[in-house]
Amino acid sequence: MSRFSRRHNAGPAPVITLVTDYGSSDIYAGVLHGVIAQICPAATVMDLSHRVPAGDLLGGALALADALPYTPVGGHGAVVAPGVGSRRRALALRCLDGRVLVGPDNGLLGPAAALSGGVVEAVEISHSPWRLEPVSATFHGRDVFAPVAASLAAGKPLVAAGDPVEVRELIDLELPAVAISDSRLTTTVTSVDTYGNLLLNAQPADLQSAGVRPGAVVRVEGAAARRRYARYGRTFSDVGAGRLVLYAASSGRLALASNGASAADTLWVGPGDHVSMAA
Amino acid sequence: MSRFSRRHNAGPAPVITLVTDYGSSDIYAGVLHGVIAQICPAATVMDLSHRVPAGDLLGGALALADALPYTPVGGHGAVVAPGVGSRRRALALRCLDGRVLVGPDNGLLGPAAALSGGVVEAVEISHSPWRLEPVSATFHGRDVFAPVAASLAAGKPLVAAGDPVEVRELIDLELPAVAISDSRLTTTVTSVDTYGNLLLNAQPADLQSAGVRPGAVVRVEGAAARRRYARYGRTFSDVGAGRLVLYAASSGRLALASNGASAADTLWVGPGDHVSMAA
Amino acid sequence: MSRFSRRHNAGPAPVITLVTDYGSSDIYAGVLHGVIAQICPAATVMDLSHRVPAGDLLGGALALADALPYTPVGGHGAVVAPGVGSRRRALALRCLDGRVLVGPDNGLLGPAAALSGGVVEAVEISHSPWRLEPVSATFHGRDVFAPVAASLAAGKPLVAAGDPVEVRELIDLELPAVAISDSRLTTTVTSVDTYGNLLLNAQPADLQSAGVRPGAVVRVEGAAARRRYARYGRTFSDVGAGRLVLYAASSGRLALASNGASAADTLWVGPGDHVSMAA
Repeated sequence: MSRFSRRHNAGPAPVITLVTDYGSSDIYAGVLHGVIAQICPAATVMDLSHRVPAGDLLGGALALADALPYTPVGGHGAVVAPGVGSRRRALALRCLDGRVLVGPDNGLLGPAAALSGGVVEAVEISHSPWRLEPVSATFHGRDVFAPVAASLAAGKPLVAAGDPVEVRELIDLELPAVAISDSRLTTTVTSVDTYGNLLLNAQPADLQSAGVRPGAVVRVEGAAARRRYARYGRTFSDVGAGRLVLYAASSGRLALASNGASAADTLWVGPGDHVSMAA
Repeated sequence: MSRFSRRHNAGPAPVITLVTDYGSSDIYAGVLHGVIAQICPAATVMDLSHRVPAGDLLGGALALADALPYTPVGGHGAVVAPGVGSRRRALALRCLDGRVLVGPDNGLLGPAAALSGGVVEAVEISHSPWRLEPVSATFHGRDVFAPVAASLAAGKPLVAAGDPVEVRELIDLELPAVAISDSRLTTTVTSVDTYGNLLLNAQPADLQSAGVRPGAVVRVEGAAARRRYARYGRTFSDVGAGRLVLYAASSGRLALASNGASAADTLWVGPGDHVSMAA
Repeated sequence: MSRFSRRHNAGPAPVITLVTDYGSSDIYAGVLHGVIAQICPAATVMDLSHRVPAGDLLGGALALADALPYTPVGGHGAVVAPGVGSRRRALALRCLDGRVLVGPDNGLLGPAAALSGGVVEAVEISHSPWRLEPVSATFHGRDVFAPVAASLAAGKPLVAAGDPVEVRELIDLELPAVAISDSRLTTTVTSVDTYGNLLLNAQPADLQSAGVRPGAVVRVEGAAARRRYARYGRTFSDVGAGRLVLYAASSGRLALASNGASAADTLWVGPGDHVSMAA
């Protein structure tokens, strides 16, 4: 049996997942589906999120990384990234586990690549032979990222996607620091979800280091002198209505939620803001 | 021909439909697609709505039930439900027409099950062998509902999904009452759609019982002393701009719309509020 | 090989693209997917946009036309249109390039049809034998447009979809005029995208006619005495933060954007408003 038939007939159908800041009002996201369908009709295209806040590098990077373990590994994961029109490079990366990531060279792909075992091959695709001509100045998702991802999903070799890049030259994403001192944990809000839950850049182990145990009540400080108490529990229903709960979210990292209300409103914070918690 | 080949090769591809309150900003809904694709790559996954208001049991139940007649019966309909973190059971139900419904035991599945001929087999899936480990406390859609729905769509038998439950023990959804007295019909707003139309828990036959005939003008009373006139017509264009029309909506139930404006704003009501109409 | 097998086994899978004003909160858009899956399970259904502002004929028409070149031509493009309940006809059109367009006879399909080489066959489908009975007064997308599009995608002949219509009788879309005088270009905002960019009904060639060259600074006048300067560049990063750039958008037409802000807010204009630019 030829390699081609194994890949396309016996193997799983390719999957392309999308993370963008294109929103859901315009045709931008739909056009990516159209471009991919023309180049790789067999691909299943999944919209992970088209609502990453414009320019929110950390939020976009974690959205992709958090979803990755729940998407098929047999196919190709692609990301079309926030931020266009700047001078950064466009990349296609192959990871150790076989996943392919497509996006800008600004660190956005970093956490997903790390989860996938790290990058083993990197190609600069700004001038890929597979891009759509003429390449627009503002819609690289349509003209570069989508056609390259679809061509790779269709079985074309990564080496032909563009010009090789040294893996060590790729731009890293700087994750915000977690500070622990005097039983106080200070961390950063990575995003606010649709319920107003605050997703934090800290792990349950960090709380343990700060001396906070499950069931404990912690003092939480947001912005504008907003100070509240939160219980370190498992889920919303562990606290009364309107009360804050600190818990390990579905990503595995910590989060703050308010039972029946918005923790973001309660603490007056948003993506990039700091939150501190003390036992 | 074996049972397997009938189901998977000759029959229609399985369909899984989703109704959630996950919103469209986060990766939550997209992750369900990923989980399903890993377990049942052949399934077509349809997003019916991810914007059921959080905790809106009636709205979610009717969203699923109203869409059901327009989704393929050959496959499997699944619902991933609003409301997590509480102590209610998780269910997988087989209905008389062959549909399978997956969701919480809080009545959400009731109207859809009734439309499908009623439940003939019920299984508690909170500890299903097919769930994803570790099960998060807050994302049962990803860890329980989606993998169970996908496993069933892939042909696994319902009996193996978990522990059998007596059908008569399932929690019913209490539909709000329709009151008719002295030519007055009082009913409940089940939801407000994207146009501001008020979807009501009443049938055209109820209007007839109240003595209101097609073409008649009715007095409508919403909240905050908002009283308006509405014509009992067929569609928006039966009334002038900014005027209210009472009509049989695409669900078959009654609705109130304002031609070119929002009936919800006009009458100052929302989901769960009462509206009364008199000839 | 029979015609049927050529179309369905050897040819590309049919594609149906959707443009509506149904929003993304309700089940309306999802129900279209369900209806299509029942009639033509092999079809890939792509959501181009469900957020065309209600009644925005020009915005809807250009959304469809702008996406069309990026959707597969082998299948069938369908549009389900904004505006229901009025007395206009429902149409299915075959274009010179083989695409089929389904929607109302109000000009919405015009620009897409023109891009596809023009209409070669037109059928009135309001009473199509393929519609779902009973046809609701308010959801023609579900009851007429979707089933007709799906039936055509499944290989049924257009002539059987309804009653033939003379192509010259179809209603045209009147595109707003572009005025050029005294080095001043006055045009119309066709839509505002998710970033607040103003998409304009004018071409780069119109700017050239007005004597504006790439790199030049133009005076832009919006509404409410909002006057600003914009650079005629290629993309956002050609101007400083908060500055306006005039550029050829991904559609090929002109657009106004503000680097890191909303041009719509800056100039206080929205769809249908005029913007004038002078060298």
